[in-house]
Amino acid sequence: MHEWDTDTRVDATGDGRFTAHLTDRWGSAGDRPNGGYLVAFCLRALGEVLPHPDPLVVGAHYLRPGVVGPARVDTELVRAGRRLSTGEARLSCGDREVLRVVASYADLGAATGPTAVPGQAPDLPPPGECVDVYGGLRLPGVTVADRVDLRGPEPHGWARGRPSGAARAEFWIRFADGRPADTASLATLVDTAAPAVLELGVTDSATVELTVHVRARPASDWLAARVATRHLADGYHEEDVELWDTTGRLVAQSRQLAVSAGR
Amino acid sequence: MHEWDTDTRVDATGDGRFTAHLTDRWGSAGDRPNGGYLVAFCLRALGEVLPHPDPLVVGAHYLRPGVVGPARVDTELVRAGRRLSTGEARLSCGDREVLRVVASYADLGAATGPTAVPGQAPDLPPPGECVDVYGGLRLPGVTVADRVDLRGPEPHGWARGRPSGAARAEFWIRFADGRPADTASLATLVDTAAPAVLELGVTDSATVELTVHVRARPASDWLAARVATRHLADGYHEEDVELWDTTGRLVAQSRQLAVSAGR
Repeated sequence: MHEWDTDTRVDATGDGRFTAHLTDRWGSAGDRPNGGYLVAFCLRALGEVLPHPDPLVVGAHYLRPGVVGPARVDTELVRAGRRLSTGEARLSCGDREVLRVVASYADLGAATGPTAVPGQAPDLPPPGECVDVYGGLRLPGVTVADRVDLRGPEPHGWARGRPSGAARAEFWIRFADGRPADTASLATLVDTAAPAVLELGVTDSATVELTVHVRARPASDWLAARVATRHLADGYHEEDVELWDTTGRLVAQSRQLAVSAGR
Repeated sequence: MHEWDTDTRVDATGDGRFTAHLTDRWGSAGDRPNGGYLVAFCLRALGEVLPHPDPLVVGAHYLRPGVVGPARVDTELVRAGRRLSTGEARLSCGDREVLRVVASYADLGAATGPTAVPGQAPDLPPPGECVDVYGGLRLPGVTVADRVDLRGPEPHGWARGRPSGAARAEFWIRFADGRPADTASLATLVDTAAPAVLELGVTDSATVELTVHVRARPASDWLAARVATRHLADGYHEEDVELWDTTGRLVAQSRQLAVSAGR
C-alpha cells in the first residue's frame, strides 16, 4: 500500500454511503486539505458504485474548506449506460458538505475512435537531471509538498523570492513514495503543485471548481506537467494543467477556476 | 422579448421546481436540442433560486439526448455564502434526467482582486466586413444555426467541403435577433457553433460534459470567439472556446469533453 491509497481510503456502510478520514498529510496553504486530495475520496467512492473502471471527466465544486478528521461520502448512481456511467458524490465533514463531485466513468482500455494530437508534450531533461521545483522550500502546513516529487530544470522563481511574472511552468511530477500513476489518482496529481499565479506575485489562490479530463491510462509513473494561467481578472483566474506520460501521450487535462484576494 | 428568453422560459411550481418546454428551434445534429440550449433552462431556474446575479462557473453533465416537448427542472440550493452561492439543477424530459448542472454564482459587478491578462482577443475584421462562417450551408435539423450569427473572414473549410485539417477557428458570434449578450446567456453562446473537429474530417461529436467560466459581463453584443480542439484521441476530445467583447475583455472561457465515433 502506498500513501495515496492509505490516506484516501473509504469504507462502504451500505446504500452508496462511505466513511473516511481526512489526514493532515495532504495539506495546502492555511492548513486546509488540498483540493486534489479531497476529490480522491469522492472518486474512490464512485469507483465502487459505477460499473466502468476509469474516471473520464470529473467536475468538482468546492463549497467549504475540508476539515482533518472523520468524513463521509454519499454517492448516487445517476446513470449507467453502455459506454459511460455517471455518478454524484458529496464529501461532508461533520454535517457540512465541503465538496460536490459529478463524474462520468468509461473504460479507457476499450476506447476507439479517430485520433489527431497536434499538442506536444513538454520537452524536459530526464527527472534525474532535474531539481526540486521548490528548491527545498517548504511552507508551513503545506504537507502535500512532501507527497509528490516535482522536478524541473530549475527551481520556480517565486520559490527563490523572485516571481518570474509569467504564470506558466513545465516540470515532472510523481508520487514521492513511487506509487504508480493511474486513472484513479490523476485528479489528485493535477492539483498537487503550487498555483501558477504565484509567479505573478499573487500569494493566495482558492479553488472554486476543478474539472479533470482523464484521457488515457498512464504508461509511466513520472508524468510531464504543463501548468498555465492566462487570464487573471478581478482575482478570478483559470489554471490549466496537462499531464503527459513518458511515451508522449496526454493522460490528463484539467482546468480550475480559482480566486485570489491578492494578499 | 427575444428568442432566447422566450424559448428557455421556466415557470416555478414551488419547492425549487420548474416546468419548461423544449422547442425544436435550437436543434443540433440528429434533431437533438443543442447542449448550450439545454443548459440555459438549468441556469434560468438556478437564477431564480440563488442569491447572486451572475453564473460564475457552470459544470454541465449530459446524460441523455433532450427531447422536444414538456420538461422539468428540479433545483437544490447547495450553499449560499457571502461571495459565492452554489446550486444544482436537473433537467428531465418525461421521467428521464437528461442534464445535471452544478453551478456557482457570484456578483461579477462587485469582483475585486488582482488582474493580469496576457491572453489576447482574436484579431478579426469588423462583423460588417465578415461573412457567414457556414457559407449559407444549413444541415437538416440544425436549427440552432438560425438562432446565432457567426461571421468570419471566410467560410469554414468543412462548410465548403474542404476540411482544413486544423481544428481551430476565430469568428464573431451574436444572437441572430440582436439579443444582447449577458452572463445568463454566455453558456448558450459558447456551445452554439459547429464543433471544431469538423475541420479534421470528423462529422460527429457528442458532448459528455461542458464547463463554462463566466469572467465578465459583456460590454458588446457581438463577441469574438476563439475555438480549438488540440487533443483528439480514441474519439475523445476537448473543445475550448473563448468569448471576448469588443472592449478586448474575456467574458467567457469554456471547455467541453466530447466523443466522436468517427463516422
